[in-house]
Formats: sequence, C-alpha cells, structure tokens
Amino acid sequence: EIVAEVEDFFSDGPLAGRRILITSGPTHEPIDPVRYIANRSSGAQGTAIAEALRDMGAEVVFVTGPAEAPRPADVEVIEVESAREMREAVLGALPVEAGIFAAAVADWRVASASGSKIKKQGGKLPVLEFAENPDILAEVSQLAEGRPRLVVGFAAETDDVVANATAKRVRKGCDWIVANDVSPATGIMGGAENAVVLISDAGAETWPRASKREVGARLAGRIAEALGVSPRA
Amino acid sequence: EIVAEVEDFFSDGPLAGRRILITSGPTHEPIDPVRYIANRSSGAQGTAIAEALRDMGAEVVFVTGPAEAPRPADVEVIEVESAREMREAVLGALPVEAGIFAAAVADWRVASASGSKIKKQGGKLPVLEFAENPDILAEVSQLAEGRPRLVVGFAAETDDVVANATAKRVRKGCDWIVANDVSPATGIMGGAENAVVLISDAGAETWPRASKREVGARLAGRIAEALGVSPRA
Repeated sequence: EIVAEVEDFFSDGPLAGRRILITSGPTHEPIDPVRYIANRSSGAQGTAIAEALRDMGAEVVFVTGPAEAPRPADVEVIEVESAREMREAVLGALPVEAGIFAAAVADWRVASASGSKIKKQGGKLPVLEFAENPDILAEVSQLAEGRPRLVVGFAAETDDVVANATAKRVRKGCDWIVANDVSPATGIMGGAENAVVLISDAGAETWPRASKREVGARLAGRIAEALGVSPRA
Repeated sequence: EIVAEVEDFFSDGPLAGRRILITSGPTHEPIDPVRYIANRSSGAQGTAIAEALRDMGAEVVFVTGPAEAPRPADVEVIEVESAREMREAVLGALPVEAGIFAAAVADWRVASASGSKIKKQGGKLPVLEFAENPDILAEVSQLAEGRPRLVVGFAAETDDVVANATAKRVRKGCDWIVANDVSPATGIMGGAENAVVLISDAGAETWPRASKREVGARLAGRIAEALGVSPRA
C-alpha cells in the first residue's frame, strides 16, 4: 500500500514521466595510480537540482563524478570518475527531455598518465602533457538527432561572469547557462549558498543569493515551465 | 564523575603524557581557483593510528589534509591543504616524542598557480610548471635539534615495494618506514584493509593483511615499545 502511494505521489507530480539527466560533481583525471587532477566541486548544487526535479515527479538520471555530497535518494545514480567516463554515461542515458550539465568537468586530461607511481628522481621535475577532454555540453547541445529539448550548462567563473557565460552559451549551443562567481571571496564554492545568473536567449537574469536547495527548486520550476508544464500542475 | 573517570582512563594509559604527532590524508596543490592536484589518500589509516595512540593515553596532534575520513575524536586536529601548509603545522607542533608521517604529501606543486580560472582558448593546452615541495619527513628526520625520538615515514609504492621503501628509509633518515603496495589490484587504496611491511634497521617485517584499525593498533603498540613503555603497562 505504501509503495503504491509513493508511486502515486511521484506519478502525480508536474514532471511525472519526464526523463531528465543531470551531471554533477567534479571529475578526476589520473596522473598516475596515486595522483590526479580534480576540480573543486562538492556536487551540492547538482544534487539539490536532482532532488527538486525528483520531488516534482521527474524520472531523474544522475551522472556524478566523485563528489562529497551524499547521492540523492530515489533517482538513478551513475558513478563515474573521468570526463571520458562521464561522456559515455551521458550518451548512454539519452534520450532525455532535458539535460542539466552541472558537473565541473575537467577541460584537460593528462595525456601521458603513468601506470606506475612517478618517482622523485634527483630533483627532476615531472613533465605533464595534456590533451583536451571531450566537451560533453557542446556535444549534446549540437546533436543532430536526439538532442534534449532543453540543454542547460553551467559556468563557474572568476572574472567577467556574465560576459564569459553569455559567450559560452553561444559557443556551446545550449539553451541556458547557469553562471556563478566562484572567486574564493564569495564563499560559494563548497558553501551552502549560491548566487547565480541565468543566461538565456532573453538575456541575463540575476537571482538573489539563496541556499543551494532554494536555487535548485527555482531552477526545477523553470525547467518545468520550459518543458510546457506548470510547476503547480 | 564521568568526566573524571574518563580523564583517569586516559592518564592511566601506557602512553599517558606522551605527545605524538601524526600527519594524515592527501594534500591539495592548487592549479587555479577551481582546479588542483591531489593524491588518492582517504586518511583512513592515519586516522586509525591516531585513534589507537589516543586510546593508549597519548596526547595526539593530528595534522590532516582534506581527507574523506571523519576526524578522530579527542585529539588536537590541525587542518591544512597544501604540503607547505602541512610543513608549517608540523614544525609548529614540535617538540613531540614521536612523529608519524602517514599523509600522502604531494612531491610537487604547480609553480605557476593562477589566481584566475585558466580558460580554454582556441584549443591551446595549458602548460604547468612544477616546483619541488618541502620534504617534511626528511626535514624532521634530520633536525639537528628537537628531532622526535622516533620518526616513522610511510611509503605507498606500486613497484618493488620493499626495495623502494628500504632505500627511502635511508634517504630520509627516519627510523621506520611503513610500506604498502597501492597498486589498484590490491584494493588497499580507499579500502578498509591494509597490508604493510615495516622497515627498520632490523630489516623488513611483513604484517598480515588486516583492517586499517588493526594495523593502526599494532603500529601503536610498536611505537609504545619503542618509546620504552610496555603496551600493557
């Protein structure tokens, strides 16, 4: 009985039956078996968005790198480590109605990653060669077939937030960019709050600083609107 | 009454009044405000050693990088991020009777760390220049004044574990090296168990694979012996 009621609850939400993909957390790019390059992303904002969409009845696929934040309950969770693994998981999860790319994906990986621990030898410093990682947001935004109706990217910037994020939206071909200022002074990275600017074809809309949970709920509401359902349906 | 009894318990342990320093966890070396280089260390083994020493009555100073493992209770915890910060914290915590250097300290830092997020520009790859980090284990092992009576280093190896660790002991000037094989196939890194070899002037002693908690308790017992107290005192 309880199970049936829970299912009813979900199937009654405004996003019932809508399949939505969210990426979250950092990626880790190996240097050798004990070292890696990482991004400072706790996964807290991506998780909050996933929970808000779930609470509206969506069927959520949550592709996450090795994030600190506990995984959202009652969603499909796919754990990955590197950008290349994230790309595979994302493409494998399509088709979806909306794709929300909140993960902090490494732009570069170490091309010369070593299978053995790199040793310190006579003061010689290591030389790391980099290769460009796949651009998951651009690839999904520009899919000739099977592009989600709504593609949302994120931009973590330290300078010229709106200008950089506006350019990123055009360059990637996504519908919206959720931009924020991650300069250490803002306390946003790793913190409980977020202050974002939503960039769309209508321009830049500055949202008031709020908890990541509130920002997630607001974004989920906007996603529901964009998919043609009223958040209060 | 309960507080008094707890204090009695600690002050009655075989290591009562002995000040012991433990470093634990990874270090993070910044590349720019959102990216860093890290080591795969959960901090689980260092934490288990700190807890075992605390339970024997030691006054534990626990210097930890950004580790996943919850911090040990009832010890002095100093949180650091980079190798240079860890060095400052260690030198500031001296004098101690024993120093246990279980942290996975980055050998190198990024010399050209940027204050702004490095942007992807026209497919150009970043160039990272490295600089050698301070060698905390060697520095403490070779202190002319105020060297701890017992200095214990750790060696996480993927090849020739005993040979590499034996050479490391001599090169650093520490008393013991606790060596382990962190090849991915062993499942030790990030796992609940450890299989170590204790390298001392008496040679290499292979310990059976056991929980990190048991390895910590055994090492704490050996430290007590080395400091001239019976673990059962």
